[in-house]
Amino acid sequence: MIRPAELIERKRNGGELTPEEIRELVLGHASGEIPDYQLAAFCMAVYFRGLTAVETLALTEAFVQSGSTLDLRAELGRAVVDKHSTGGVGDKTSLVVGPLVAACGVPFGKMSGRGLGHTGGTLDKLESIPGFRVELSNEEFIELVRAVGVAIIGQSPDLVPADKRLYALRDVTATVDSIPLIAASIMSKKIAAGAEGIVLDVKVGDGAFMKSLADARMLAEAMLELGRGAGREVVCLLTDMDQPLGWAIGNALEVDEVRRMLAGEDTPPDLFSLAVQATGRLLALSDLGIDAEEGTRRAEQVLDDGSALATFSRWIEAQGGDPAPEALPTAPVVHELAADDEGFVAEISALGLGRVALELGAGRRTKDDAIDHAVGIRCFAKRGDALAPGQPLAEIHARDKESARRAAERIRELVTITGEPQPPRPIVLETLV
Amino acid sequence: MIRPAELIERKRNGGELTPEEIRELVLGHASGEIPDYQLAAFCMAVYFRGLTAVETLALTEAFVQSGSTLDLRAELGRAVVDKHSTGGVGDKTSLVVGPLVAACGVPFGKMSGRGLGHTGGTLDKLESIPGFRVELSNEEFIELVRAVGVAIIGQSPDLVPADKRLYALRDVTATVDSIPLIAASIMSKKIAAGAEGIVLDVKVGDGAFMKSLADARMLAEAMLELGRGAGREVVCLLTDMDQPLGWAIGNALEVDEVRRMLAGEDTPPDLFSLAVQATGRLLALSDLGIDAEEGTRRAEQVLDDGSALATFSRWIEAQGGDPAPEALPTAPVVHELAADDEGFVAEISALGLGRVALELGAGRRTKDDAIDHAVGIRCFAKRGDALAPGQPLAEIHARDKESARRAAERIRELVTITGEPQPPRPIVLETLV
Repeated sequence: MIRPAELIERKRNGGELTPEEIRELVLGHASGEIPDYQLAAFCMAVYFRGLTAVETLALTEAFVQSGSTLDLRAELGRAVVDKHSTGGVGDKTSLVVGPLVAACGVPFGKMSGRGLGHTGGTLDKLESIPGFRVELSNEEFIELVRAVGVAIIGQSPDLVPADKRLYALRDVTATVDSIPLIAASIMSKKIAAGAEGIVLDVKVGDGAFMKSLADARMLAEAMLELGRGAGREVVCLLTDMDQPLGWAIGNALEVDEVRRMLAGEDTPPDLFSLAVQATGRLLALSDLGIDAEEGTRRAEQVLDDGSALATFSRWIEAQGGDPAPEALPTAPVVHELAADDEGFVAEISALGLGRVALELGAGRRTKDDAIDHAVGIRCFAKRGDALAPGQPLAEIHARDKESARRAAERIRELVTITGEPQPPRPIVLETLV
Repeated sequence: MIRPAELIERKRNGGELTPEEIRELVLGHASGEIPDYQLAAFCMAVYFRGLTAVETLALTEAFVQSGSTLDLRAELGRAVVDKHSTGGVGDKTSLVVGPLVAACGVPFGKMSGRGLGHTGGTLDKLESIPGFRVELSNEEFIELVRAVGVAIIGQSPDLVPADKRLYALRDVTATVDSIPLIAASIMSKKIAAGAEGIVLDVKVGDGAFMKSLADARMLAEAMLELGRGAGREVVCLLTDMDQPLGWAIGNALEVDEVRRMLAGEDTPPDLFSLAVQATGRLLALSDLGIDAEEGTRRAEQVLDDGSALATFSRWIEAQGGDPAPEALPTAPVVHELAADDEGFVAEISALGLGRVALELGAGRRTKDDAIDHAVGIRCFAKRGDALAPGQPLAEIHARDKESARRAAERIRELVTITGEPQPPRPIVLETLV
């Protein structure tokens, strides 16, 4: 084998590594033969020089090879679909899409992650439901998908261990922000978890990892290419994260918002639009033999006829949770915030609201922080809304009055009001296939 | 303290670190508190983003602070001078300059390194002398400089340990080639070793680390700035390394060349020119109160009157070596190579000849290789020389006939002959003060 230092030097100088060389680096690192410091230097060189499509695919395949993989088709006798979001504020889409897809008769199986910083994680949201278990074995996962049609569990520890090891290193060496490294990390997990049809929700905006549409497109293209290389059908939605998704930010508040939407009680338009479009795409990737438009129609139908809500409740119970709305934890202080002036909402910083929710205790600053599942924000203001003085802007769910007061002050600064009507912007900015 | 990952990220993004932050990184690494992988990522970010003059000085000072330092003025009651070369092929200048400076009445004290790859190291050359000891304590070093006027020993292990640790890491993470990192590494050693006047010989050409005059100037400027920052008087000579220096390449052959030159038996013009100019500069930096021109004149005088040779012999004996020419090891096979055609020498690749010498066994590929002190090359051809058929080109000193034959073939390819007379090029290309 070529010395790792020579591979690092070649990448540093803008050269290309062979798939075999990439594999040796990554699997050598996973097995402990190649030390962290060499991979740290390599990742920093990749940050500056990038990876070619061939290198990125080799990296993804090496991650997949490093652990076990699920063959859901062999287990279930049919194709399973999955969805992934790059993370945002108030993003509870998976909790809606899973039941919608399953209610339409297509198996949905997803391994998910926890939140860090201003973005929440699907597992944390699910764990706000008393009794809900996310740490299930691969066998339990498969059995749930078979019996209920939907399962969302934590990342299995024996999947993509090389990615896990490298990601932990990237996290402490300022080498996370590299599009090919992000693409390989995400896609290796999706490929190893066994779904054949995958919808990727790439968030764009101040509350997202990708701040610009150009960067989001690059990440989406890289992931589509990796999906093709691995024989999976992939669709990428580039979606707006300049404002929070839906109204609720905070774990139990978001679960409640999902349940209310599925029950037809209260429906945030942006979440509805994204959920039915993502579901339509997933159904079009499934073995139903329908297109995305028909898929979206069926998603709306299972919402209307109550079968999505029934599937949601069955799923929550199947993973040990209590689906009753009153089972969710509630915060001791609920503070309402009203508009002072008349005008139109020009901006509501997703990043800013994500940080306020983090300060209320809804998220974690470091991996070891505990989360308060009950706290958070319901922000009713949406970009373009016409406001009248006294109209509710937001509801703050807090541990105490002082933190609610601080949050209210911050939120008032984060909502920009203007005299001009604002043009509408759709939630799905672009679709890449 | 700020998290190391944040410092790495700031540098990665092209920002600047404070001197205190640089110190915390470097001393934290030296003490083992900050892991290798974070410094590896940092050094790769520095490779791409560089360091400011203030950051480079802070890095140098942190290296110096990490260990003990010598105060040679306090020990000897006067200023000591030192010289450093960035490394080349056939570079035995220190072995000439040390005795010249001492014979002129100025104390010369140098800590030196070993060779790696195609460049030789001063310690390896000295160790080809039977009995010569390079591993001396700081006390022995000072006593030798006092008694003999000249000492060259191995780097003391308690000097700049942070540089040693970081250099070992850079060596295996492809982060050696960074001008500010090189400048800080060299200058921290020179500053810690206590000389007040320092001549830096920055080699330029295919056999040197710096391939272009522009890069060599950048390195020289960075080191001059660090010298000023540390209150040392520094002069930089940019010197030609497109062809080997002198004729001999290989450890005992080079020591023999030095002795013959000091004895007035045989004098390679380029080595002579560089040695007397470097000595002149060192004397001008000393407490003699003379300028470089007068210094060069005195260097020539101690060569002429035999006092340089006498100092050389006294020095070799003082460090335990046998100064008799016949004490040096000799190779079993000596193969002569003659010119085939008439013409002028256009090029003799220093890098190429360095590699041939390495293959003969004169150098080490990895740190743990053993060296054969007897083998090497005497290459008589110099750029611009007019050649007649049959005229000696080179002499190969080898372990066996087969390796001599292979070396001869390679050398013939490395000497480019042309029909045109070649313009002369001086050995010292530029002097920066």
